[in-house]
Amino acid sequence: MSECIFCKIINNEIPSRTVYEDDEVIAFLDITQVTPGHTLVLPKKHVADIFDYDKKLAEIVFSRIPKIARAIKQSDSTITGMNIINNNGLVAYQSVFHSHFHLIPRYTKHDDFKITFSDNSTSYTDDELDRLVTSIKEKMEV
Amino acid sequence: MSECIFCKIINNEIPSRTVYEDDEVIAFLDITQVTPGHTLVLPKKHVADIFDYDKKLAEIVFSRIPKIARAIKQSDSTITGMNIINNNGLVAYQSVFHSHFHLIPRYTKHDDFKITFSDNSTSYTDDELDRLVTSIKEKMEV
Repeated sequence: MSECIFCKIINNEIPSRTVYEDDEVIAFLDITQVTPGHTLVLPKKHVADIFDYDKKLAEIVFSRIPKIARAIKQSDSTITGMNIINNNGLVAYQSVFHSHFHLIPRYTKHDDFKITFSDNSTSYTDDELDRLVTSIKEKMEV
Repeated sequence: MSECIFCKIINNEIPSRTVYEDDEVIAFLDITQVTPGHTLVLPKKHVADIFDYDKKLAEIVFSRIPKIARAIKQSDSTITGMNIINNNGLVAYQSVFHSHFHLIPRYTKHDDFKITFSDNSTSYTDDELDRLVTSIKEKMEV
């Protein structure tokens, strides 16, 4: 896509700090560096979000992620964990609409990344949960 | 692993609300239901975290995620996005050490899920960023 900033990086029209690249996947440092080593992994093929992936493209992108994750972790002995984040839609913090995975190495619980998960485990009846399952299963592609 | 709660779910020793299952992958509702439809996707094979995956297992798990994500999104017309989260290590909020992916449908920016990303784009020199790239590339498996 001609106006996509990530396509421009892939096409070497915009520079990036690339840590991994092959024919189908590229990984480069995120300019925001939420934590040191924060890296984006993405398919060279332009897809907007997770809903746009077919099975094969999901395999291609994700098959590279464990080794990139290991390289980041092994690059600094003070890294003790990692959050892998894929945001889909404006409501979910997606800002570039070329699908990408954030690999965010974690150093301490008080570094510059935070997720707030609410616990709603006591908020649902069994019937409500069963209805959620049914509504999802009805839409599952065979 | 005999004491792993997710292995017990996979072995039908503990009930779950399963939305998808095949020989290698299972997906069920997260009991905390951070947002309605919050689902976990995981390999039946016990691996602790992303650093434990080989290429093949990453392909297996991730090849199912787009269709599960689409089913969740299509199950409720008020879902406008989705965060996909994989936590690795206590420091990164991992609580069950059988690797899993959270699919968290998003309804509004003010629902029960939140990520705080700090922007450190002005905090690094070019030399510091170049050193990060070099240290990661040095550890990349061929």
